[in-house]
Order: sequence, then structure tokens, then C-alpha cells
Amino acid sequence: MVFSLQPESAVPRYLRIVEGLRHEISVGLLAAGTRLPSSRQLARDLGVSRITVANAYAELEADGLIEARVGSGTFVLPPRRLEVSTATSSDGQEIPVWQERFRGRPVGARERMLGQALRSMGPKDTMSFAWGAGDMRLFPADQFRRILADVLHSERGLALGPESPQGFPGLRQSLARYLRQQGIDVDAADVLITAGTQQAINLVARTLLQPGDRVVVEAPTWPGALDVFEGMGVQVIGIPLDAEGMCIDALACVLEREQPRLIFAIPTFQNPTGSAMSVTRRQELVGLSHRHGVPILEDDNMRELRFGSPVPPPLAAFDRHGDVIYAASFTKSLIPALRLGYLIARGPVREVLVAQRRALDMFSSTLLQRALYRYLESGDIHAHWKHTRRVYRRRHAAMIGALQRHFPPGAAWRGVEGGFVSWVEVPASIPIMDLLEDAVREGVGFAPGAAFFPQPAEQPFMRLNFAALNEWQIEEGVAVLGGLLRRHLSH
Amino acid sequence: MVFSLQPESAVPRYLRIVEGLRHEISVGLLAAGTRLPSSRQLARDLGVSRITVANAYAELEADGLIEARVGSGTFVLPPRRLEVSTATSSDGQEIPVWQERFRGRPVGARERMLGQALRSMGPKDTMSFAWGAGDMRLFPADQFRRILADVLHSERGLALGPESPQGFPGLRQSLARYLRQQGIDVDAADVLITAGTQQAINLVARTLLQPGDRVVVEAPTWPGALDVFEGMGVQVIGIPLDAEGMCIDALACVLEREQPRLIFAIPTFQNPTGSAMSVTRRQELVGLSHRHGVPILEDDNMRELRFGSPVPPPLAAFDRHGDVIYAASFTKSLIPALRLGYLIARGPVREVLVAQRRALDMFSSTLLQRALYRYLESGDIHAHWKHTRRVYRRRHAAMIGALQRHFPPGAAWRGVEGGFVSWVEVPASIPIMDLLEDAVREGVGFAPGAAFFPQPAEQPFMRLNFAALNEWQIEEGVAVLGGLLRRHLSH
Repeated sequence: MVFSLQPESAVPRYLRIVEGLRHEISVGLLAAGTRLPSSRQLARDLGVSRITVANAYAELEADGLIEARVGSGTFVLPPRRLEVSTATSSDGQEIPVWQERFRGRPVGARERMLGQALRSMGPKDTMSFAWGAGDMRLFPADQFRRILADVLHSERGLALGPESPQGFPGLRQSLARYLRQQGIDVDAADVLITAGTQQAINLVARTLLQPGDRVVVEAPTWPGALDVFEGMGVQVIGIPLDAEGMCIDALACVLEREQPRLIFAIPTFQNPTGSAMSVTRRQELVGLSHRHGVPILEDDNMRELRFGSPVPPPLAAFDRHGDVIYAASFTKSLIPALRLGYLIARGPVREVLVAQRRALDMFSSTLLQRALYRYLESGDIHAHWKHTRRVYRRRHAAMIGALQRHFPPGAAWRGVEGGFVSWVEVPASIPIMDLLEDAVREGVGFAPGAAFFPQPAEQPFMRLNFAALNEWQIEEGVAVLGGLLRRHLSH
Repeated sequence: MVFSLQPESAVPRYLRIVEGLRHEISVGLLAAGTRLPSSRQLARDLGVSRITVANAYAELEADGLIEARVGSGTFVLPPRRLEVSTATSSDGQEIPVWQERFRGRPVGARERMLGQALRSMGPKDTMSFAWGAGDMRLFPADQFRRILADVLHSERGLALGPESPQGFPGLRQSLARYLRQQGIDVDAADVLITAGTQQAINLVARTLLQPGDRVVVEAPTWPGALDVFEGMGVQVIGIPLDAEGMCIDALACVLEREQPRLIFAIPTFQNPTGSAMSVTRRQELVGLSHRHGVPILEDDNMRELRFGSPVPPPLAAFDRHGDVIYAASFTKSLIPALRLGYLIARGPVREVLVAQRRALDMFSSTLLQRALYRYLESGDIHAHWKHTRRVYRRRHAAMIGALQRHFPPGAAWRGVEGGFVSWVEVPASIPIMDLLEDAVREGVGFAPGAAFFPQPAEQPFMRLNFAALNEWQIEEGVAVLGGLLRRHLSH
């Protein structure tokens, strides 16, 4: 080995060792079959730690350049030949070498749990509470048919062409007007159209976070957000919820000690608990965020699906400095297929978010943006929301009634003031995933609690969507779940 | 300082030093005002290199925990107080501290160059060649109006509800049928619906690449791909193009020496050169990819916009092992506002790509997927393509004629067989960005060559879109550019 480690470099040392060895192998200075020094020896020679060398060797081995043979050492492998560049998978299918690392890649625990629940969501299964959307029968299909026809008739090609990454100005103006009514001080320039809240979370995460950073979430929270953060190598810190929302003392403590880079919160009809954060708690949260210099991403999809009593203003309405980035969408409260949502960001971060959007997928459908704009301008959305709220309120009452009738003592829930879901705690002795398996067999699905926590482990909760089902379906489905719970408890 | 460095850990040492110091500062073991040991001293104490300690100190300083004072050492700062958590920006506007790093963030050179070109794209400017899309007047607006109405009438809420991340099965079946006609051996299960090619590039990059990896691209290539790779901290290696496409010897050499993780190629009517890779070169490229175990991402958006002669099959048609991931979309050849494209991936990587799509933005519009499905099944797309090709072929001829008439000696271009764009080389003495500024002032835009190269630097090229303009507009616009070129040359 001829290379030595340059002392000053921004590249981590183990990578420089990888590159040095790779070069010597590729140019033939280290011939196939050569025995490499032990990691202890090389560490001493290069003046680095053994773990550094071990990391380098592991990377070279993963790349197929060297091989560790137990008891005899680490050896340079011959160059890959044609025939080794496909491998045969367990089912006899040939795959390229570079795909080997994806073979049988274990599906994440969260994905597995939700997957099991979602299998109960086929159109034939009429009693699935696992659904994350509202009732398709309530979507204003006829109105959108007319609006789309109008847009295509009057704007023709313009409605089918490209749009700017920030979004159609008319739509952004409508949204700014609507948001000012919610107490948020914005104008159209602060609004960025997104493909929905999941994309908004990605945009904010990729703009504000680096691998190794920490992010604070409510525990439980929306699994899609956990997927984004964990997928980026960001450490997720869950803050428990009390009756008013995120426990503020726990949050203050974490902000003080852990220096997180972002707080992700769903203050209104939280997913999955359905609860709404109190006004005081909202003020405290925004104040803490500002004092600690940690921005908040507020997810506010459910605001308009309140059953009756007024909802506290969004966090963004308490924000006087630009600490709150606000995300909402029309997928939950209007039409999932629109794939339209929006971000409000004030200050220099907005322009960076727009650039991220361009790099991610350019822009949202011009046609759907213009159609939504016309729908908002017509004012009909208020009648739609009014009708939807009335239906969902009835279904919520049906859910609470059914839970009281059919669930065994030891189960606990709280009525909610809006949204789609009830969050039910079951006795800790119930094996939730077994229960889910039994339930799916009887045609009833629910979302298991563990999917909503940062560290998946069994959690004695189930999330039940009451918005997508009729009242008799709710009654029947809850009866099935109640029967299964009792059976499990009697074992 | 009381912490010591554990020898065995997967966390890089500088980060462990950061965490150790952060903890001691936050719990008060290191009080505000304490002078930290010099990096040399601490490096000796902990048995690490000085650069490791310097990195750790830099990170803590960036976080506002410590401060290096020139000539006197590094000191622990007091906890941040309320009043320091907003800063005042140059325009007098208060912004939160966490937004400071976004203030005046320099816009990338590529973005700046294209931005300047795109400012010439407003609807009033009728002679912009900077456009990346086709002619909106040719989009089948009436047909889509009827189809959308049909879908919403017959499928109602179903067309407005959620869809799976992989996409509407009917659409995936139509696409698989179409792709089999192109010689690609796929079925519907191999197809993943995307929000367009830009999203496809993101999905593949996030699945296959890590920061520090290398990726091979054609030089020049599509700037959107460069944005994705560079944004991820991936090193981009550009391979020059000859008349047949990517220079294969240069590619072989790079594959041998640089161990890239991905090859990104646009073999058919390449963006920005408009050229098409020969059949032989395609076979060589796929063979090299397989032998070296380096996957290819093929971008094939322009295939159907051929002017006459048949186009060689896609790279994916030569791929017998699953080495080629194939991406195409309907944004270029049909309707940008659909925001629909697709990926073909065979083997275990596909499932990982689907999971990435879910985490990125859940799914594409159900309504638009079902509308596109009906349009494809109607077969009308072939008549649309036939008409579009005829129009663009005429415009291409107009472009070549105008270049011959108006461009000065020393400018060079090649006729293309399909697509949207001509790639024109101008004498190296021409300051392209100045020329662009002058051109935009006269109402003519073009895309400057430098935007298409991995390392932005002035490049004596301009990309001229001929697809979106009438023949007389092409003539007039090229005359303006020719005049400006001559004026610059005469200086």
C-alpha cells in the first residue's frame, strides 16, 4: 500500500481510506488475492482508529472489491466478471448486482402495520375504519365537472400548459384572502402551492434539516411525517399530549437540551387523536418556538371540518416574526384527487422552498389549480363544508354511541370537535396486531396505534375513521371490533 | 471538560465531540465565558486530529454555542436571550434567527442563468426560444374537456378519491401495452406512475444515491437533473457527446476508475442538443452498464416527437437484466398540466421506488390518471402525435432556414430528427450572458448553454426552442439574435 492519509481534508478519513484502496486496487497496485493488513495494523500505520479502518473495509467489501475471510484475513477480490454481475434471487429470478441491496429489503414496521390495515380498504369492504380520507360520496363531483369544462373552454391551452413552481397567482390570492380571515397576516407572495401536505413536509424538511438533526413531533402523530424525517436520518423526539395538546413543560425541556431544528405540530383535530390544542397552549408553543429560535411546521388540514364550536386560530395567527411555516391542503376537506395544498412561509426561507419545489417536481397541474381557484371564488366551498360537517358530526355521534354500546370496560376514548377520527385506548393486555388480523378477516379494518409513534412498538390504541362510513356501517363495524376485544379479554 | 471519546461508535468523531460539548454547555458544566482548550490541545487530549476538533468547534459556533475570538481563543457563549432571536435584515425587516442562513442565500449560477432566460417567457413576449414546452395551441383541450366530463359523470367520487402510490392499474396496463410495442419487456406491475420526469429523477436519486456518490451524465444535459444530483451532494461527472451520443470510451474509462452509482442518459432527442444516440452506441451503453453493475436512468420524453425516420429503440429495450430504469412523461408530448409520467423498474428496486413515492407526495391525481387512461385507450393520442410532429417538423425547417439566413459565419448547428430544440454553437468570443441580456431587452429569449453543463461556466452555446413558436416568429426572433451576434462580433 502506497497511499498515506493527508491530514487536512473535509472528506471523512474512512472515505479517504476507501478511495486510496480503491485506486490501488483499480490500477493494479494491489493485485487480486493480496492479503490486506489487519485493521489494527493499518490503523497504526495511518494513525487513525481501528473503527475508521473497519468502516473503510466494510465499504470496500460492500462494493465487492475485497472480502473478509473469517480466521484468515481480508483479501483483494478479482475484478468482477460479466457473469457475476447478475445474481440469482431466492425465487430463481436473475437480478443485476446493484439491485442486490434492495432484495428482500425489510419493509419498515410502520409500513407493515399500516399495510395490514389498508388491506381492509378495498371497495368491497364496507366497514374499514383504516381509511385516511373522507367520504367520496360527498365530493362535489358535478360542480367540478362544470368548472373543469368552463376552464378548458375559456382558457384552452393556457389551462394545459406549464405553471410557475410557486403556483397560479389567482389561486394564491384567493388563499391569502381566506387565510387573512383565519387571522394569518399574509399576502399572495407568501403562499406556495404544493401537491399536498406530504409534499409540504418534504419541502420543509429538505430545506431546514440535515441528517443527524433533531425534530420534535407530537407523540402520536401523522406517520407520513415520521417517514419523511426518519428517511432523512433525522432523529425524531416525541412529546406526549395531554388534554390541551403537546405537553408544554416537556417541550420546553427538549428545546433547552436537545437543540432541535424543527417542531412539527398538528394543533387542530390532530391526527391520530382528533384533539384540538387550547388557545393558551398555542400561544405558549409559538412563544417557545420564537425564544429558542426553532421554527414550527404547522399542519392544519382539518380546520374546516369542525362540528360546531369555533376552533382556536392557527399557530400562524399568533406568529409575529415568521417562525411558523403553515401547511394545509384540499385533500382532506375537499377532494383528494386535486393533489393541491399550500405552504405559507414568511421571510427569506420562502424563496428557498420555491426552489426546492422546482427541483422536486416543477409545478402542480395548471388545470387543477385554475379549477380550484374558480371553485374558491364561487364561494360554494362554504356550502360544501357546511354539509360535510353536518354529516361527519352525525357519524361522530354514531361512533361514540357504538363505542359505548359495544366496547368492553377498560377501553377509553374522548369525543372530538371535528375531523375524521376517534382514538381509542384499549386495555394494555390486548395484542393489537393479532386483533387487527382477526378484524380484517371479518371485514373490518382499523389503523393500529403503533404506526403513529416515533419508535414503533405495540401501543394499546386504535384509530377509527368515522367520516367515510354510514351510520349503520359504523354500528356494525364497532360491534365486530367490540366482540373481538371481549373475546381477547376473556382469554 | 469531563467527557471522553468512546473509541467504538458509528457516529463520526467530530459529531461526538459536538454532542459532548453541547451537553456540558447545556447542563452548565461549561459556564458562559469559559475559554475552551485550543483545538491542538483538545485534539491531543482526545487522541484525535486537529481537523476533527476544528470541525466540531465550527459546528458549535454555527449553532451559536461558542465563539472564536481572533487572538484570544474560543469561548462559551451565554444562552440565547429573547431579543437575539430576531435579527434585522438589510431591508429593515425583522426575521427569526433560524432564517438568517436563508438571507441573501446566493441563487445558484444555473438558476440565475435560466431565470434570466425565463423572464423572456411571459405571454406578451412572442419570440422567446427559452421555453421548455411545446405549443399550447396544439394541446387537445376539447378532447380532454369531454373526457374529464365523462370520467366525473360515470365514476363520480371514485375519480376524486385517493389512489395507490404506484398508480391507477388501468393506466399502468395501457402503458405496459404501449411500451411492449416499443420493444420493452414489461407488464403493468413494473410501471410506477410519477408526477413527471423531474419527480422520477428525484425518486431514483433518493433510492440509489448517497451524498458523496458519483453519477455520470451527458455533458450537456437537462439542468433539472443536475439540480437534483448537486442538491443531494452527489458528484456529477459529465461525458462529452459525439455525433452518435455519449462518447463510449470516455464512459468506459469513468466507469472503470470512478465507480459511479448511476448513469443518467437522454438517448433520444437529447436535451439540450436534440441529438439521437445510434443503435450501436445504445447497445454498448447497456452492455457497459451491466458489466460494471452501474444502473442507467433513461429519460425518454421525446420519443414520439420524431419528424420522420424511425427512432432507435429505447435503452430499456436492450436491457435483459433490469439494469435500466426507464422514465418518460406526458408533459412534453401531450399536456404539461397533466403532471403525469411513469417509471419502469424491474427487480427488487421497484418496491423501494414505490415506497419513496408514497413518502414524497402520496399519489398522483386520480382524476387526471383516469382521464389519461381513457385518452390512451381511445387511440386518439396517435392522431395528436401525428399532427404535432408535422407542425414541429415544419418549424424545425423554419429554424434551420432562419439560422442559415441570419446567423454569422462561425456559428454552427446540426439539424435534428425530432423534439423541440436546436443547439447552436456560437464563436467562443461571444459573451453569451451579455448577448442574452441584450436579446431579452429586444423581446427575444433563449436558454444559455452554460445552464446545461455540470460545472456552470460560460459555454458558447444557445438552446433555441422551435416548437412553441409560429414560423414567422421563428424567422423574426432568429433575425434579432443574428443581428446581435454580428454586432458583438464586430466589436
